Amino acid sequence: MIKKLYDTSLSLLTDLYQLTMAYGYYQSQTAEKEAVFNLYFRRHPFSGGFTVACGLNYVIGYLREYRLSKKDIRYLETLTGNDGKPLFDADFLQYLTQLEFTCDIDAVPEGTVVFPNEPLLRIRGPILQCQLLETPLLNMVNFQSLIATKAARLRLAAKDDTLLEFGLRRAQGVDGGMTASRAAYIGGCDATSNVLAGKLYDIPVKGTHAHSWVMSFPDELTSFETYAEVLPNNVTFLVDTYDTLEGVRNAIRVGHKLRERGHTLAGIRLDSGDLAYLSIESRKLLDEAGFTDTGIVASNDLDEHIITSLKEQGAQINIWGVGTKLVTAYDQPALGGVYKLAAIREGDGEGARWEYKMKLSEQAIKISTPGIQQVRRYLDEQGNFVSDMIYDEDRLPTDAATMIDPLDFTKRRKFDAGQPYEDLLVPIFRKGKLVYQQPDIHQARERVQQQLAGLHAGIKRFVHPHTYPVGLERQLHELKTALILKLRGQG
Amino acid sequence: MIKKLYDTSLSLLTDLYQLTMAYGYYQSQTAEKEAVFNLYFRRHPFSGGFTVACGLNYVIGYLREYRLSKKDIRYLETLTGNDGKPLFDADFLQYLTQLEFTCDIDAVPEGTVVFPNEPLLRIRGPILQCQLLETPLLNMVNFQSLIATKAARLRLAAKDDTLLEFGLRRAQGVDGGMTASRAAYIGGCDATSNVLAGKLYDIPVKGTHAHSWVMSFPDELTSFETYAEVLPNNVTFLVDTYDTLEGVRNAIRVGHKLRERGHTLAGIRLDSGDLAYLSIESRKLLDEAGFTDTGIVASNDLDEHIITSLKEQGAQINIWGVGTKLVTAYDQPALGGVYKLAAIREGDGEGARWEYKMKLSEQAIKISTPGIQQVRRYLDEQGNFVSDMIYDEDRLPTDAATMIDPLDFTKRRKFDAGQPYEDLLVPIFRKGKLVYQQPDIHQARERVQQQLAGLHAGIKRFVHPHTYPVGLERQLHELKTALILKLRGQG
Repeated sequence: MIKKLYDTSLSLLTDLYQLTMAYGYYQSQTAEKEAVFNLYFRRHPFSGGFTVACGLNYVIGYLREYRLSKKDIRYLETLTGNDGKPLFDADFLQYLTQLEFTCDIDAVPEGTVVFPNEPLLRIRGPILQCQLLETPLLNMVNFQSLIATKAARLRLAAKDDTLLEFGLRRAQGVDGGMTASRAAYIGGCDATSNVLAGKLYDIPVKGTHAHSWVMSFPDELTSFETYAEVLPNNVTFLVDTYDTLEGVRNAIRVGHKLRERGHTLAGIRLDSGDLAYLSIESRKLLDEAGFTDTGIVASNDLDEHIITSLKEQGAQINIWGVGTKLVTAYDQPALGGVYKLAAIREGDGEGARWEYKMKLSEQAIKISTPGIQQVRRYLDEQGNFVSDMIYDEDRLPTDAATMIDPLDFTKRRKFDAGQPYEDLLVPIFRKGKLVYQQPDIHQARERVQQQLAGLHAGIKRFVHPHTYPVGLERQLHELKTALILKLRGQG
Repeated sequence: MIKKLYDTSLSLLTDLYQLTMAYGYYQSQTAEKEAVFNLYFRRHPFSGGFTVACGLNYVIGYLREYRLSKKDIRYLETLTGNDGKPLFDADFLQYLTQLEFTCDIDAVPEGTVVFPNEPLLRIRGPILQCQLLETPLLNMVNFQSLIATKAARLRLAAKDDTLLEFGLRRAQGVDGGMTASRAAYIGGCDATSNVLAGKLYDIPVKGTHAHSWVMSFPDELTSFETYAEVLPNNVTFLVDTYDTLEGVRNAIRVGHKLRERGHTLAGIRLDSGDLAYLSIESRKLLDEAGFTDTGIVASNDLDEHIITSLKEQGAQINIWGVGTKLVTAYDQPALGGVYKLAAIREGDGEGARWEYKMKLSEQAIKISTPGIQQVRRYLDEQGNFVSDMIYDEDRLPTDAATMIDPLDFTKRRKFDAGQPYEDLLVPIFRKGKLVYQQPDIHQARERVQQQLAGLHAGIKRFVHPHTYPVGLERQLHELKTALILKLRGQG
């Protein structure tokens, strides 16, 4: 997906401590030890009840081109410690030049609805590689999942209306804009204003004119007439440069001429003022003039809450243009995804076994879960999601699986063998080889809507959403409990 | 700066409406009309009293490579209107293939402290070009100025302590991370964890190890010992994987061994818990063991307010690692920069004159200012900033310049001819040719600190900062007033 960002390799897009740790593994002869890391988050963004996984295609593109270049190595040679001597020795740098990505990755497909503590991505392979990849994997998955989730919320608010993403000018950097356009489309937007995103990602693009177009003419009517002559098949007039309702009247004047020429006044756009009042008044003017099919676009710092409120007020808006609040996820501009070591393979041959790993914390929510994790999503007979159970692939659920709430071990659910389910993580890479047929962006977008359809309405609510049940399979719960007790010296 | 982002031209990194307007100008034979647009913002981010301009070097890199590729044109050929017919005709697309950047640009150097309504960048040239460039210029300047400002605030909070940027994993996309690292360094950070930013932008990089390093060993002490053997010249131990103060004791144990080998325990890092308490206790333990020079690094969702509070509590922290809150500008993740048409050249030869342009609004703050704007910063004899006066280059301030508050025309200041000043915008491009000697990133970083030294302390305060005076030169004020009255039909 990303081919060449900057004119150099992207393989140094990582934190320095990943490289110093890699050096540590290399020098202590543990670089090739097999490890498992899980990428997951602890809380939904936006005080919401669900999150949409996104970014996997970027990860795939990144890993397929993963290779340190000679320039990368020459740069690493220049790094020094506090005594002015090089950080890394020549043998290690030589090792890095030959490093190839050889891990297994399992991940949830883009567009999957996910919940706290569920691995969105699981990587298994030499610990040195897993470590180096932590930062780029988090960067790509965190941001795109955040934006896809925001877009899915906007889609819920906008219902069947058209939803446009307009955010490039306020996005966080070039790629902040590009990946936001991509994730916003997957999450539920219909189109973007971003032409390069249209070109590279096959997203429909939309746009007509700005205030500056109107201002560049002696008066608004002339500006509308000129635009309609040049682009009669793409007419949505921005009506608020001087006086909004007068702008609507000018749009109608030009609309009549468009009709005479066999074209349509597709829409008008409101970008300031009281959008509820102005849209209702604009609708009346348009309808009275016979432009009942002309759409009303609104923009101006919209988010899911304002759209909901405008709809409640009876606003006559059927196309929503959302920019800053979407592409920066303004009310929560980062998803706190983490990447935690869950197991290391110790011993060789017959004696090899997994040593499970976790990070302790005084706060139960911050304690990681060990194991080679998979997520089993149980469904009811209509295909609605019932609950998700995280289990260890080396400890398959028994016939009647028991799921335990990770924050309250007395809360349990049982599932008999006949309960339908699907396992969410699917194989993406095996020994560094891509084994996954990537869905295209439109399929990922459809998946979001299919997944949301499986969720109870209470979980999709914006205010105090219901918590979807996610738990640990009994054997994994017991493994985790034993490990906590051992680490706290009570095992 | 950005050479090749993606494997294609970046010249379509714009909103579709810029292209439809460009088509409108082209078809109505006004594409080559000379226009002036100003890029400015209306409010400081973070409820602050100043903003640091940043991103100009990116803009320069972008414009030097501005050229639509054949692939770009082929993509534009595929775009259709609501009747399924092409949006653009072949002549226009042919025109675009030959389009070269030929504008004049004046801008404030990176690292300049700026205020609302002051142009950070002014572009003058064919209106079609100015229009196409609106979106990328805003994208690059908005975000980097936002992050440089956040970093400058963190620097004020951290005083003379070391300030590290750690944000890549939570940044908004790859380039969101890269440009954030760059702007954070310019704004006042000392180093980044982002290795690729270190390589491409010549920023110092820092990093040692994460929790996963500790977890990959049977116990913490072994992990510290192994690290110290491998990287004795880069030792800062993360001490909170299991029990923080026990971690400090383990760090001290290994610190003694390091000393025996002629190395130093450079630091310990706290990443959770009560940072005030833990740093004070850690300092005691370190000092008692003779490690008075060992630094204490803190990280964990820090921002300028938490750093200020920790210092007030007597926290013994002298190195601050800031991530998410910095690189996403968490409390305000977008700067609302705008780009407004200010004048169009009408007529030819002798009869040519500027027609001034502005956008009206019911809110005075949203009314744009016409004119070919420059900013004159008056200084006192010590070089401190007194006030900034925006003037029209065609209406040079007279000997005794009068500056008028744009929101209250009865508030005025006079400056006599002897008052020292500097004009902030400097020539960057002339007819598309770069005429500016770009300062390097370290010079831009120094400029921020020099500029902040010129600002009164009240303006740098986080809570209810004093408002630095910015006004319009009398003749520009009169031009604007007359134009408002005319547009409102009262001229």
